[in-house]
Amino acid sequence: MNAPIGRLADSLTLPQPYLLFLGDTTEAGYAKTAFGLADWAADRCVGELGVAGCTVSAGLPRLSPAEARAAGARSLVIGVANQGGVISESWVAALVEAMEAGLDIISGLHTRLTSVPALVEASRHTGQRLIDVRTPPPSIPIGNGRKRSGKRLLTVGTDCALGKKYTALALHRAFVARGIDADFRATGQTGIMIAGGGIPMDAVVSDFEAGAAEILSPDAPDDHWDLIEGQGSIFNPAYAAVSLGLLHGSQPDVFVVCHDPSRRVILGMESFALPSIEEVIDLTIRLGSRTNPAIRCGGVSLNTSSMGVGEAEALIGAERRRLGLPVADPIRGGAAFDALVENCLA
Amino acid sequence: MNAPIGRLADSLTLPQPYLLFLGDTTEAGYAKTAFGLADWAADRCVGELGVAGCTVSAGLPRLSPAEARAAGARSLVIGVANQGGVISESWVAALVEAMEAGLDIISGLHTRLTSVPALVEASRHTGQRLIDVRTPPPSIPIGNGRKRSGKRLLTVGTDCALGKKYTALALHRAFVARGIDADFRATGQTGIMIAGGGIPMDAVVSDFEAGAAEILSPDAPDDHWDLIEGQGSIFNPAYAAVSLGLLHGSQPDVFVVCHDPSRRVILGMESFALPSIEEVIDLTIRLGSRTNPAIRCGGVSLNTSSMGVGEAEALIGAERRRLGLPVADPIRGGAAFDALVENCLA
Repeated sequence: MNAPIGRLADSLTLPQPYLLFLGDTTEAGYAKTAFGLADWAADRCVGELGVAGCTVSAGLPRLSPAEARAAGARSLVIGVANQGGVISESWVAALVEAMEAGLDIISGLHTRLTSVPALVEASRHTGQRLIDVRTPPPSIPIGNGRKRSGKRLLTVGTDCALGKKYTALALHRAFVARGIDADFRATGQTGIMIAGGGIPMDAVVSDFEAGAAEILSPDAPDDHWDLIEGQGSIFNPAYAAVSLGLLHGSQPDVFVVCHDPSRRVILGMESFALPSIEEVIDLTIRLGSRTNPAIRCGGVSLNTSSMGVGEAEALIGAERRRLGLPVADPIRGGAAFDALVENCLA
Repeated sequence: MNAPIGRLADSLTLPQPYLLFLGDTTEAGYAKTAFGLADWAADRCVGELGVAGCTVSAGLPRLSPAEARAAGARSLVIGVANQGGVISESWVAALVEAMEAGLDIISGLHTRLTSVPALVEASRHTGQRLIDVRTPPPSIPIGNGRKRSGKRLLTVGTDCALGKKYTALALHRAFVARGIDADFRATGQTGIMIAGGGIPMDAVVSDFEAGAAEILSPDAPDDHWDLIEGQGSIFNPAYAAVSLGLLHGSQPDVFVVCHDPSRRVILGMESFALPSIEEVIDLTIRLGSRTNPAIRCGGVSLNTSSMGVGEAEALIGAERRRLGLPVADPIRGGAAFDALVENCLA
């Protein structure tokens, strides 16, 4: 990789800014990607576009594809999903119009953009790209284990789907607010759209998993931080391969353990108890020290979304005292989160 | 998977018996796959075939494709490689003739069979298949962690390329010789050709790695053993994702640590010391107990090919005393290997 220091290779980056596409969506629950982009990448979203029947909004100006292009947009992002993750018939005309206006199309849906003949044909005659963020970039190298310059933080978890992306984004925002040169490095489809680039780590062939993590956080200046979105859990019987390849290749200096205190078993696997936070700390240090002997735990991110304020604050305090580490819920922020940020940077 | 108990799904099996193809090879070193098949799957090889210039032999009868078909062969296996792993121009006519005689073609070369237009055309008009054993089967499920019936042994290693396949094959042969119902489960291309099926674990998308290992060793009778070929090492900074997914999905009852005492660093990575055998035992038990709490180490397989007999025997004895476990070189066999086999079965 000959990318400039700290910068990702072009094959890992998406064309920005975006026009957010909301389709014909009527349920906010189906527009999570759009809301995530509006929350975390508002400065790179020029507007939103729906088709007939759409009743949701991400709070951005409504623009036609041509208006969005004139405002600087380089791509249309499909910010909604429907059941089955398919590309609805009723969306196709708007997507073709966007390509004709000069926008690439970006999708994280299960259905590939290239499986829709009308989009392939429009891509051919307009020259605009169809970008599926579930598809890893070509030519990922085998990992080499070489120590890279710059600093790295990885979010890890007691399980999947409990706040690793959100925690990395919140830490990135806090680092930047403190004047630190930092990048959020995305490893899943929503994160990739927010970051404007990244690698869908769960879609990488296993032989190349660590190598993919290596190119995702390239050499950088000594005081630069990469905040890397974790995936799965080394204790998850289905996904631990993804998590270990990402841990080895990321060679983090600091990791933050993400945990949902309401969860008792691994998601969808009743017979597997959730590991304790201490077990995750211990095993992450043991495995991570293979590629970074200086790895340490920066603290714990608790997802207390199922609790009231009082209960959450009591638990955060109790866990901090029990573990002897900063503990915070990034969504609640406050002094606890500041302490977590400071300890990661210490 | 609804495969009969202990049997692999049809999508994971190769058509046997084989006709071994030796191409125009003049160097024995390029015919390792053919020699491996002649060593380990002679009962499923009806003969061998070379083209003009070929001077090597696997010691099997020379047969034309038609003669091989008449003798029961169902496929031709490319048992040789050349520099670059390409399919030589001079081989194509023989491969087409084999398809016209009713044989499928099996290859483990880097170059895909389907990249050679003449072979694709012959496949179309004969209906015979072009099978690349580097390509994983379709429709691998996500792992579920469910405990399966039957017993499993996995070979693991202090590194890659030091005898995990050979050890699993030798243990399988010894188990069968003792009257035990056992299958060798292959995870790499040469092993897959020997076994007549399997999954190239390093080519599986990482999200499906554990799930692939699960379907590779399906439910089986309680006294049945699967001897599973290991891949990589959980200490290898490039390949640990493959190794951990295979360990979790295999849920082995017993593992055997494979080690080359002449190796000091990870292959191709000067800055990474080889882990000790004890470290591999300890970490394998810790990680493997996630899906099989009863996991134990059956012993150690030493690759002493670089040593004389006296030196090898002295080292095997010293390691046995030091570790308190059976230690053997399966290639040397003898009482030490018998003790290893007995302890795996204990």
